[in-house]
Amino acid sequence: MTRYRLQIEYDGGGFVGWQRQANGPSVQSVLEEAIARFCRERVTVTAAGRTDAGVHASGQVAHFDLSREVVPDTLRDALNFHLRPAVVSVLSAEVAPADFHARFSAKARRYVYRILNRRAPPALEAGRVWWLAHPLDATAMHEAAQPLIGRHDFTSFRAGLCQARSALKTLDRLSVERDGAEIRIEAEARSFLHHQVRNMVGTLKLVGEGKWRAADVKRALEARNRAAAGPTAPPHGLCLVEVRY
Amino acid sequence: MTRYRLQIEYDGGGFVGWQRQANGPSVQSVLEEAIARFCRERVTVTAAGRTDAGVHASGQVAHFDLSREVVPDTLRDALNFHLRPAVVSVLSAEVAPADFHARFSAKARRYVYRILNRRAPPALEAGRVWWLAHPLDATAMHEAAQPLIGRHDFTSFRAGLCQARSALKTLDRLSVERDGAEIRIEAEARSFLHHQVRNMVGTLKLVGEGKWRAADVKRALEARNRAAAGPTAPPHGLCLVEVRY
Repeated sequence: MTRYRLQIEYDGGGFVGWQRQANGPSVQSVLEEAIARFCRERVTVTAAGRTDAGVHASGQVAHFDLSREVVPDTLRDALNFHLRPAVVSVLSAEVAPADFHARFSAKARRYVYRILNRRAPPALEAGRVWWLAHPLDATAMHEAAQPLIGRHDFTSFRAGLCQARSALKTLDRLSVERDGAEIRIEAEARSFLHHQVRNMVGTLKLVGEGKWRAADVKRALEARNRAAAGPTAPPHGLCLVEVRY
Repeated sequence: MTRYRLQIEYDGGGFVGWQRQANGPSVQSVLEEAIARFCRERVTVTAAGRTDAGVHASGQVAHFDLSREVVPDTLRDALNFHLRPAVVSVLSAEVAPADFHARFSAKARRYVYRILNRRAPPALEAGRVWWLAHPLDATAMHEAAQPLIGRHDFTSFRAGLCQARSALKTLDRLSVERDGAEIRIEAEARSFLHHQVRNMVGTLKLVGEGKWRAADVKRALEARNRAAAGPTAPPHGLCLVEVRY
C-alpha cells in the first residue's frame, strides 16, 4: 500500500460538510468517488479538519492509501478531471510516509473568518463572508480576543455535539484586523473543538457592537458553560487556510 | 429633477452585461426595476462602463434622475432591498450635480484582470479568474505591456463591434504582477475601446507562454489590424474596480 497526501481547496457551500453523510454530498464522498473512478479502488479519505457544512477550505490536507502506485502529479490531474463539476480542487498530491496521518500528525491548523462590515450586502463575496451592516469596532474585538490565547478549558466555546475527550486546548493566535470594509479574524491552534472558531467569532461580534466588553469575554471563558458565551457565527465566513505538520 | 450617483458592485456571471437587452437580465434592467419598485418612477440608468456579459464590477458608477427627493442612504438601502436576490449591490448613493454624467464626466477607469496560473482548477475563485494551467512568465508579460502605454491607435485591440468614433486612446497604466498562483493585470485609462482590456490580456498571454516576444506585441499594435493581435481573453477574469471623476 502507498499512502498519498493531498492538499485541497473547496467551496463548502454545496456540501453537508467534510464528512460522509446520508443527507447530501460531502467533500469526502466526492473525493472518494473521484478516486474510485480513476483508480478502481474504494478508499477512505481522512482529512486534517472535518469542516462543517458551508465552511470553505483553501488548504485542507487529507490522506488515503492505494494498492497501486500512481505518479503524484498524474493523480492530482486525474482527480481534478473526475471531480468535475464538483467545486473541489486538488492543489497537490504527493507520496507520504506510511505513518503520516492528516489528522493526528498535524501540528497546527489555521482558520480565517471574514466579516463584511458595511451597509451594502455582498455581491462579489456572497457566500464567502458574514455580512454585518452595523459598524463593528475591530480594535476592541482584537483586544478582547487576546485573553483567549493560551491553554484553557474552552467548554464555553464548544458545540454540544463536540466529541473531543477534553475541552482543554491551546490557542496560539486569535487576531482581528480591519482592511476597509472587511474584518479578518485569524485563529491558529494545534487543534480546535467543534465550532470553537465560530463560537469565538460570534462572541467577539458582541464586543465589536459594543454590547460586551473585553472583561465579559474573559468571564465567558472562565464560566466553562456554553450558555455564557455568544452565539455561533455562520459557517460561510470560515475558511481552513493552512495545516502544518 | 434630482440627479443621483450610485457606486455599484456586481457579479457579472448571471447577466447579459450592463446594457439592457432582449435576451436576458442586464445589470441596468435589474437596477431600473428596483428603482421603479421603490420610487414608482421609470428611469434610465447610465453607467461609467458598459461592461460585457460575465464581466464583474466592484466600483461601477452610474447616474439617474428622479422627480422626487430621496435621502441618499435610504435610497441605497431600499435599492439593495429591492435588488434581492439579484447579485447587484449598491455600495453608496449620493446627490450629484445636474451636469454630472457617469460616462462622460469620468476622468479615469481602472480594470483588474485576474489569471489563476496553476495546475489545479479554481474552486473558491471559479467564475472570477481565467484559469491557465501552463506556467506563464509574468515578468515578460509586464515588460511586453509597457510599449502599449501612451497615446496610440488601438485598432489591433478593438472589437469589431466597437462603436467608438476613433481608435486613438491614451493608456495610462498596464501592469502585470504575480502573487503566488495569481497573475494580476491592472489597466487604467480615461476610456477604453470595446474589448480593449481583454484583447490586451489575450495578447500578453502569448508572451507569458513564450510564444510571443515583447517586439511582437509592439508590432501587433503598429499593424492597426485586429487580426495582428492575440485572441480575446474570457470575460469572467475582468473586473471594473474604479472610476474617477
